[in-house]
Amino acid sequence: MNLVPSPRLRTSPFHEAVVAAGVTDVTVYNKMLLPLSYGDPAAEYRRLTEAVAIWDVAAERQVEVRGPDADACVQYLTARDLSKMKHGQGKYVAMCDHDGRILNDPVLLKLSDRYWFSLADSDVLLWVRAVVRERGFDVTVHEPDVSPLAVQGPLAESLITDLFGPHVASLKYFWFIETELRGIPLVLCRSGWSKQGGFELFLQDGSRGGELWDLVVEAGQKYGIGPGAPNNAERIESGLLSWGADTTPDSNPFEAGMAHYVDVDIPADFIGKAALQRIVATGPARLFTGLVIEPLAGGATSWSMHDRAQVFNGSERVGTMSSVAYSPRLEQTIAVAQIRRSVVEAGSPVEVASPEGRRQATITPLPFI
Amino acid sequence: MNLVPSPRLRTSPFHEAVVAAGVTDVTVYNKMLLPLSYGDPAAEYRRLTEAVAIWDVAAERQVEVRGPDADACVQYLTARDLSKMKHGQGKYVAMCDHDGRILNDPVLLKLSDRYWFSLADSDVLLWVRAVVRERGFDVTVHEPDVSPLAVQGPLAESLITDLFGPHVASLKYFWFIETELRGIPLVLCRSGWSKQGGFELFLQDGSRGGELWDLVVEAGQKYGIGPGAPNNAERIESGLLSWGADTTPDSNPFEAGMAHYVDVDIPADFIGKAALQRIVATGPARLFTGLVIEPLAGGATSWSMHDRAQVFNGSERVGTMSSVAYSPRLEQTIAVAQIRRSVVEAGSPVEVASPEGRRQATITPLPFI
Repeated sequence: MNLVPSPRLRTSPFHEAVVAAGVTDVTVYNKMLLPLSYGDPAAEYRRLTEAVAIWDVAAERQVEVRGPDADACVQYLTARDLSKMKHGQGKYVAMCDHDGRILNDPVLLKLSDRYWFSLADSDVLLWVRAVVRERGFDVTVHEPDVSPLAVQGPLAESLITDLFGPHVASLKYFWFIETELRGIPLVLCRSGWSKQGGFELFLQDGSRGGELWDLVVEAGQKYGIGPGAPNNAERIESGLLSWGADTTPDSNPFEAGMAHYVDVDIPADFIGKAALQRIVATGPARLFTGLVIEPLAGGATSWSMHDRAQVFNGSERVGTMSSVAYSPRLEQTIAVAQIRRSVVEAGSPVEVASPEGRRQATITPLPFI
Repeated sequence: MNLVPSPRLRTSPFHEAVVAAGVTDVTVYNKMLLPLSYGDPAAEYRRLTEAVAIWDVAAERQVEVRGPDADACVQYLTARDLSKMKHGQGKYVAMCDHDGRILNDPVLLKLSDRYWFSLADSDVLLWVRAVVRERGFDVTVHEPDVSPLAVQGPLAESLITDLFGPHVASLKYFWFIETELRGIPLVLCRSGWSKQGGFELFLQDGSRGGELWDLVVEAGQKYGIGPGAPNNAERIESGLLSWGADTTPDSNPFEAGMAHYVDVDIPADFIGKAALQRIVATGPARLFTGLVIEPLAGGATSWSMHDRAQVFNGSERVGTMSSVAYSPRLEQTIAVAQIRRSVVEAGSPVEVASPEGRRQATITPLPFI
């Protein structure tokens, strides 16, 4: 269906470049257009897994927290131990509500004098402002003019080294530097929503998006760069969470594959701590897991999903599947789902609702690759 | 551009009916598809202004507040005097943050034992949950299974009377009843995002959307009912606010045409009260107003807008235009804008940025009609 433009849906600084590159498919993410395809999914997958792709991910908006109470405030908002976090470091974190429901799964960046929550698709700005003012933290909270441009793929490091110099090769995963490129201010972080390696360039001047895009594309020619986007097949293979799709409104982080990133026993208080401690004691009701699905009768290897699909164990509904794709590398139809813990732990065979009715599926640990 | 379906973008209970009716254009609103056109804008405008149209506005999500502290909590969240609000009454309200910025402009419904904020496009659920838990109000907050279906146009009352009985004709504007239609539970409210008269049927069972749609369409045949959607030309004529488009992130309700609905001198405390009192004392920086724009040279009478357009007074930027349309009834190109107060009050001639460069525009009070 045709998406009607509106000032309510904000325009990325890279929008003109993206249109010139032939964007065909989009979604709306944080009230911003997020490109999803340029019309050739096979080429986009190959570029991402074999070369390098440039993605407009400006829709990953930042919420900036700055001020005397910033450390305490950010910890209070985050279900992960931040006590040893260093300047220049990023961490993948869960933000939960007071009942332990996951509200967002941002990458948190600790800059020299402020923090950025680099967000999935929810209005965390509202959440943080309410908490800060009702609790009385001495911080300011706003959405800065910061728009990430991702460079992803096995050749991304060579390209970024060409652009910024050899020192960037030593950046550890989720670490970043505050730098510039031909005078364009940006934060360069080793991050991105793929497992193919790469960087995100957090552009700090929205008027210079086209310029930054062109610089990266020009330097990327020798590596076969082309436009791309968060890739559904690759992200399922890699087991990356899509908050709001894979999670339901009542999911907690343990049901979202984030157990490793939640620290319920730290001295500091944070929102949802008591609720998350209770969940740890009993175990989560569901787990985030992979599925391998038998091909459809007509030979279709994937399909588009408007809604989560039911997952069955016999006659019982035991979970929801949120995304399905054909994996070119596995040559299988794979999916991600939230499924009752006992079913996942038993590795029971399940069935999923498909356009052709129920199809058999095998529970498979994430990541696939 | 093509909008890719995803479980992250929720499906309305009326979605199948809408697809069967031939929806062509959509937007995303509260993370849900909101139909905008069925491919014949002229017919859709005529139906709305001369007959009756059925709109899937399920994307107007509700936040429900219920519990011992509900009255105090809802007042604290609302910049309007609710002390005399009755059961069965709705009110158009501004929700503001602590600095007086408008976060949403919902219709608030006071049901027998709970409240619904019927929302514009922002995650007020997050805002309310943060405020409630940090401040300790004894209420529960959730998004119920409630999806409005609007019936709008001068013949809407006849149609709704046919369906529900003659007693509904006595409902005052924004008042409602809790009722049912052939066993389908709903709240019937005299409301809707047009000034053509009409009702919203707040469906309370998402599994029965298609059934409700069909009942309304069947009863509406004799009135010439057809599918429609929030109509940009009509809403500009009527001066209705589109929160998030007409407002900028720092707008206060006085800059959004909502002065009449803000009560800064009530005894009760509410979020943003002090900030709004300060704005009342100095006057708002901008005002929400109409514009009549000279036709473009090529004869085009309207154009599509990705971003707000600058409004100029000579060489000075004095505001932003957020929406433009050709008014069939006025036979003019009209728009809405937020413009510096002194310029509006002086009625100064202005210019707006258009696809053909600057065009002259005349500041005109809202509503146009």
